[in-house]
Amino acid sequence: MRDVAVIGVGMNHWGELWEKSLRNLWTEAALEAVEHAGVDRVDAMTVGCMSSGLFVGQEHLGAMLADQLGMGPIPGTRVESACASGGLAFRQAYLAVASGVSDIVLATGVEKMTDVDGGAATYALSAAADQEYEGYHGITFPGLYAMMARAHMKAFGTTRRQLACVAAKNHDNGLLNPLAQYQMKVTPEGVMASVPVADPLGVLDCSPITDGAAAVVLVPVELAKKMGRPYIRVAASAQTTDTLALHDREELHSLAGTAKAAAMAYKEAGIGPKDLSFAEVHDCFTIAEIMVTEGLGLFEKGKGGPAAEAGVTALGGKIPINTSGGLKSKGHPVGATGIAQVREVFLQLTGQADKRQVKNPRWGLTQNMGGTGASTLIHIFERA
Amino acid sequence: MRDVAVIGVGMNHWGELWEKSLRNLWTEAALEAVEHAGVDRVDAMTVGCMSSGLFVGQEHLGAMLADQLGMGPIPGTRVESACASGGLAFRQAYLAVASGVSDIVLATGVEKMTDVDGGAATYALSAAADQEYEGYHGITFPGLYAMMARAHMKAFGTTRRQLACVAAKNHDNGLLNPLAQYQMKVTPEGVMASVPVADPLGVLDCSPITDGAAAVVLVPVELAKKMGRPYIRVAASAQTTDTLALHDREELHSLAGTAKAAAMAYKEAGIGPKDLSFAEVHDCFTIAEIMVTEGLGLFEKGKGGPAAEAGVTALGGKIPINTSGGLKSKGHPVGATGIAQVREVFLQLTGQADKRQVKNPRWGLTQNMGGTGASTLIHIFERA
Repeated sequence: MRDVAVIGVGMNHWGELWEKSLRNLWTEAALEAVEHAGVDRVDAMTVGCMSSGLFVGQEHLGAMLADQLGMGPIPGTRVESACASGGLAFRQAYLAVASGVSDIVLATGVEKMTDVDGGAATYALSAAADQEYEGYHGITFPGLYAMMARAHMKAFGTTRRQLACVAAKNHDNGLLNPLAQYQMKVTPEGVMASVPVADPLGVLDCSPITDGAAAVVLVPVELAKKMGRPYIRVAASAQTTDTLALHDREELHSLAGTAKAAAMAYKEAGIGPKDLSFAEVHDCFTIAEIMVTEGLGLFEKGKGGPAAEAGVTALGGKIPINTSGGLKSKGHPVGATGIAQVREVFLQLTGQADKRQVKNPRWGLTQNMGGTGASTLIHIFERA
Repeated sequence: MRDVAVIGVGMNHWGELWEKSLRNLWTEAALEAVEHAGVDRVDAMTVGCMSSGLFVGQEHLGAMLADQLGMGPIPGTRVESACASGGLAFRQAYLAVASGVSDIVLATGVEKMTDVDGGAATYALSAAADQEYEGYHGITFPGLYAMMARAHMKAFGTTRRQLACVAAKNHDNGLLNPLAQYQMKVTPEGVMASVPVADPLGVLDCSPITDGAAAVVLVPVELAKKMGRPYIRVAASAQTTDTLALHDREELHSLAGTAKAAAMAYKEAGIGPKDLSFAEVHDCFTIAEIMVTEGLGLFEKGKGGPAAEAGVTALGGKIPINTSGGLKSKGHPVGATGIAQVREVFLQLTGQADKRQVKNPRWGLTQNMGGTGASTLIHIFERA
């Protein structure tokens, strides 16, 4: 397997973009990444998208978007792993380059979510849960994560305020990211006072419905060196599954899929959690970020909440989490999220993260998950 | 890259299976393939499915089905390329084994199509076309293929009877396949007299709406030899894209994506079309089989129709096409079709095709396409 580099990134300003179709959104991000990488061709492309069928009535995205880019007959591969679709698209592109099947691969993610009303969006998103055993009973994702939050609070004494601190911190970071959907400050008190969605989670504990796309270009490290462009090295790629339904888990307050993927990724990269300079993780709900930071081994089980409250995960803290603003503030176009995480790591490790730059980072990690953690993609990157 | 073998296959009796869910269907085929292969574990799985979101409101199939098989935390990867989703799932599994990422990979396909009414199924299937530029105007797939048929008739003098002969031949083959959806004889006269769907295509020129799943197990050839089981070798894998919309093509009466993928596959396998003993191809409509056999170089352009009428592609003919019954008679659960094609090649090349056995075959080919040919997957296999 060859060493693989990321050499270019692209992303649009995420939000409720009623004037842009899925095709428009994707093309903006893809062309930006190709131009940014300085390449004049792409040998293959992958696209992560959770449910373009339910959101806009369009499948067959691999062919549509390769065509849209004017790059047919290159292989165009669409992958789906619910909210981890972007991470899976990155992994497939990584494996294509590492194995020598392709040299220059465009990994992308996209979701156009605001063309349907709230009920239809909730129905589409619940397709990431087990429809026959969970959806049938009427539960949706805020409810599932609220149960995980309650279990975490009971087991470890995690507080409502600790959850709120995650949202406040990610909004602080999002204020420094000009492409974030919600560039506004929120306080822990504001989060705690926000409209309840599924107790203990309020609306400000939840990531939003978002239109957006992101794209990155991967090449062998050898080629990146020859091109003389800034790059980062992919040090590890791990993918795991867990039970789809929450009720089948041994514990509601931990993420076994994340813990297993993290162990695989650390081993492959030859580092441990203490070596990480920062991480972009899947904060679809505030409790998710706390559980993920514990699953990654950054904190002991039950210590994720106190760490968030103490500022350990803030920009300038010991281990900054979600410097991009995370799903909470940057937005969560589900198929695009995993790719945008890689973009943030690229900007940080190449010293281009501007006002949200982490000081002299060497190792960055992305963690992207689907549903309540039934699928997990973890990647580790090293500064060149 | 390592040589890769297929060592086990599974498939249910396809049809309108109202008593079985997507999960049930898939599990039957997957367990059969695993048992047939004689393996006690699987390192990863892929699943091709076009639109479980629109058909049954369930995405996240990679995690759901790895869980259903009791094999989590193995990576479960769902891919989508419209009606070529199964072929793409096979290719992803092939690349995983060839590159050394995984040793034993389960490649699967599934579609549960009959839980929605006809209008909703037509809407879901039209998601394989360009919704903004084709679907918006009300055209559906029978209409698109009817235009291709008209163009072919005009350019080459292909006749209505020649189209009908494709359906009659595939039903003859399907009569010999106990798992086929429609095990009934139809005559060319019957096809020509069938209810018009989109002139010149009648209902008996169209593949049906089907529930079904298929699965195959891939391992390195080295391991297959050690296990001492019957196997076939994957000699080539090719994937191409073409314009999504039919109106963007240079010609309506040819399939550039198939021709390009075929050229790549023949080169990789080191053979030409004359070396093939038989092929399983994408006869979603009768005209499609004629255009595909020309695209594969089995016949000159315009000679596919006369060849079908003369029995050249029949069982016992010079180059048997769709010995399984094809999409027309076997059924077309869109995500499963590409995997079932591989199953047929396995049975033929290992001499287990019973009453539809081709005499002493050495090389078999599968061609699976999405939409009107916007994505194409071709694989070539050699007898061990």
